[in-house]
Amino acid sequence: MRRLLRHPVRLVPFGFLVTILLGTGLLMLPWTTSQHQYTPFLTALFTATSAVSVTGMSVVDTPNYWNEFGLLMITVLTQVGGIGIVTGATMVILVVARRLGLRSRLLVQAETAEFGIGDLRRLLLRIAGLALVCESIITVVMTARLWLTYDYPFARALWISVFHAVQAFNNGGFALYTESLIGFSTDAWVIVPLAIGTVVGGLGFPALFEAAREWRRPSRWGVATKLTVWGSLTLLVAGFLGMLVIEWANPRTLGIYAWHDKLLVAFAQDAFIRTGGFNVVDVEGLEEESYPLVIALMFIGGGSASTAGGIKVTTFFLLAFVIWAELRGEPDVTVGHRRVATASQRQAVTVALLSVALVACGTVLLILLTEGVPLYAALFEVTSALTTTGLSVGVAASLPESGQFALIVLMFVGRIGPLTLGSAIALNTRRRLYRYPEEQPIVG
Amino acid sequence: MRRLLRHPVRLVPFGFLVTILLGTGLLMLPWTTSQHQYTPFLTALFTATSAVSVTGMSVVDTPNYWNEFGLLMITVLTQVGGIGIVTGATMVILVVARRLGLRSRLLVQAETAEFGIGDLRRLLLRIAGLALVCESIITVVMTARLWLTYDYPFARALWISVFHAVQAFNNGGFALYTESLIGFSTDAWVIVPLAIGTVVGGLGFPALFEAAREWRRPSRWGVATKLTVWGSLTLLVAGFLGMLVIEWANPRTLGIYAWHDKLLVAFAQDAFIRTGGFNVVDVEGLEEESYPLVIALMFIGGGSASTAGGIKVTTFFLLAFVIWAELRGEPDVTVGHRRVATASQRQAVTVALLSVALVACGTVLLILLTEGVPLYAALFEVTSALTTTGLSVGVAASLPESGQFALIVLMFVGRIGPLTLGSAIALNTRRRLYRYPEEQPIVG
Ligand SMILES: [K+]
Ligand SMILES: [K+]
Repeated sequence: MRRLLRHPVRLVPFGFLVTILLGTGLLMLPWTTSQHQYTPFLTALFTATSAVSVTGMSVVDTPNYWNEFGLLMITVLTQVGGIGIVTGATMVILVVARRLGLRSRLLVQAETAEFGIGDLRRLLLRIAGLALVCESIITVVMTARLWLTYDYPFARALWISVFHAVQAFNNGGFALYTESLIGFSTDAWVIVPLAIGTVVGGLGFPALFEAAREWRRPSRWGVATKLTVWGSLTLLVAGFLGMLVIEWANPRTLGIYAWHDKLLVAFAQDAFIRTGGFNVVDVEGLEEESYPLVIALMFIGGGSASTAGGIKVTTFFLLAFVIWAELRGEPDVTVGHRRVATASQRQAVTVALLSVALVACGTVLLILLTEGVPLYAALFEVTSALTTTGLSVGVAASLPESGQFALIVLMFVGRIGPLTLGSAIALNTRRRLYRYPEEQPIVG
Repeated sequence: MRRLLRHPVRLVPFGFLVTILLGTGLLMLPWTTSQHQYTPFLTALFTATSAVSVTGMSVVDTPNYWNEFGLLMITVLTQVGGIGIVTGATMVILVVARRLGLRSRLLVQAETAEFGIGDLRRLLLRIAGLALVCESIITVVMTARLWLTYDYPFARALWISVFHAVQAFNNGGFALYTESLIGFSTDAWVIVPLAIGTVVGGLGFPALFEAAREWRRPSRWGVATKLTVWGSLTLLVAGFLGMLVIEWANPRTLGIYAWHDKLLVAFAQDAFIRTGGFNVVDVEGLEEESYPLVIALMFIGGGSASTAGGIKVTTFFLLAFVIWAELRGEPDVTVGHRRVATASQRQAVTVALLSVALVACGTVLLILLTEGVPLYAALFEVTSALTTTGLSVGVAASLPESGQFALIVLMFVGRIGPLTLGSAIALNTRRRLYRYPEEQPIVG
């Protein structure tokens, strides 16, 4: 127990499991559904896992199946899951930073050698505070819009706004409309705050904090923050342009809109792909060419220690710099006048390759468990679950029980796996007692 | 010119291109086809590229479309391509070894700082000698079998044996039967020599040479040889067991054979997957579950500086060791009491990730260029072309011209890409003039 408390990060996977099981139990009760019936265990487990892992996939029609109590439960589970993952992942980073003897950029006093309960409380408060501020801003704008323009009653406008604000900032992906946010796709007052909230929540606490503190001098940012901010911007632009080019004339997606609405919808959908999970276009109606783009963006995901999933923007761009250095024959991998430690490079390789393996195995598993699901659909759904994105080409809703269970496992692994891996690596670094002679085998 | 001669490795891609164009011209002439007609440019180019890159894919029915002259041309192109790639890749390794100041394990005298024409001649002779010995042994066994048991006329038995022996050792993949080697699938006298020849040719000259020289003391092998030999063995066993388990009762593949024939056929097909390209079972009849296995094995490929393609066994297992070290928190990556240089790790990462990207882009390209090719089939065919394996689920033969051209490019890139990349890295390593301060960003 003392060992656990000394490294509270070890408690995070356990806490997630308990939260999911608690949520499952509550969601099974009849007072959470609109028809007041008992919900089957697997449906409740799927929904609770999807909410706590901030994925947003569902096997029922969320707004009609659940009543207000059920939807409130989903909101709470999403918020707890989101804060839990951000806190846990930030702790890992702090523990690693202390191990390495680095000055912590996140907490002011870093004298103690171990991560204590006091640190944890302060960290949790900061993260919760940030969530509250962001979600409040979105809620205010969206409530005003729904109340004033759509003539929703004020209480209903507020509730709908709170629900979507929590989902957006936590990259949760659940929506109160059967067609997700397609009904609001050209309403900038609703869509833009949600899109910005999703991107901010997906940047991650460490990068956000450092970027905000040194916003006048981006050159002082650490490598991780530089990669996260500039990398996210690059991916946003690439996804936006890619979506515009591919979907411009598709009558099932952007084709029906005027050119300025095309820009708005493409911007919002692009923001939701990594890994918000809302959709403002019909995912099943996308051009065949869009699927590789969407799958790639989901796979890359958001910032480290954020509510986003995927291998993370830092991992992806760090590997790009590694390859670039190798192709140019540079002895060191440098990012903005800083040499990247080989330990970081190795960590990025591990995360990326294990994720590729996980996606491949998950896809094979899903194909084995189902009949007639084409490879591209299985790949899409598995990537979406593992990266906790929640977008769907319609497979999740029609899966047999075994397939639903597979997605539950994938969502859990996708959310907890990297954290557990990160903390294991952070806490178990071995001392170097002796070194073997070096050899440079030629590969490839 | 002097600069080119000083690094003859730079000539290799150029030599490949010239050989392919020469082969294309010759294969277009009417005296190479059984119907004595002119062959269209694209068909000739496809066949020449397939032969020189030792892939073995074809867009015509090889044994019936070409006559003996055409088939002899294919044999010569395969042999030239095979020796060319092995020589080129071995040169890269020697150049790198000299750059690093390592004692060359391949050539006795390594005093000169640059790689000279004398070295090249000696290397070529050794490689050609090895090819001649291996191909002769296969030819003798197979000729005897065809002549004595199948009552083929001696000259015909000899010709068929020479053709398949060249294809096997060079991992060429062309066969003189429309159904590849399915007709011989249970004849151990034919299949086993071809399978062993394929594996030996796919191990690569450096590993073969070192393993042969120090065969009594495997502990003295270098890291690359250890990874190649033990890794290849591991993959062979894994593929063999995987194929047996999945295909045991499949009536379109192993299901029709007695148990001892199942073992033989699975052994041979397993040996041909990475990346021989013969088939003794109907590839289109494989169980769905076999495709991921076959694609993974094709992607990994054979040994460095061999006629096999793929990312190479060393690359794959080195990355496995990197991940293992990372998960265990080891500061160094060690393989058999040797520390692996970070430069080698970075090279492996570059090769693997660029290959993943290439397979993904190639698959998307092929889907764009064709109608109704399912994703799994496109992925299979593209992986097969890029890794110069040559196995096919039937897509290649029915492609439109643009798709055929795409496969031609993929075969060429798959064969020449790694070599060009390797030599570029080897020849352009920059001096370290100054170093930036180190930073250890946390990723994942
Ligand atoms: K999500
Ligand atoms: K081949």
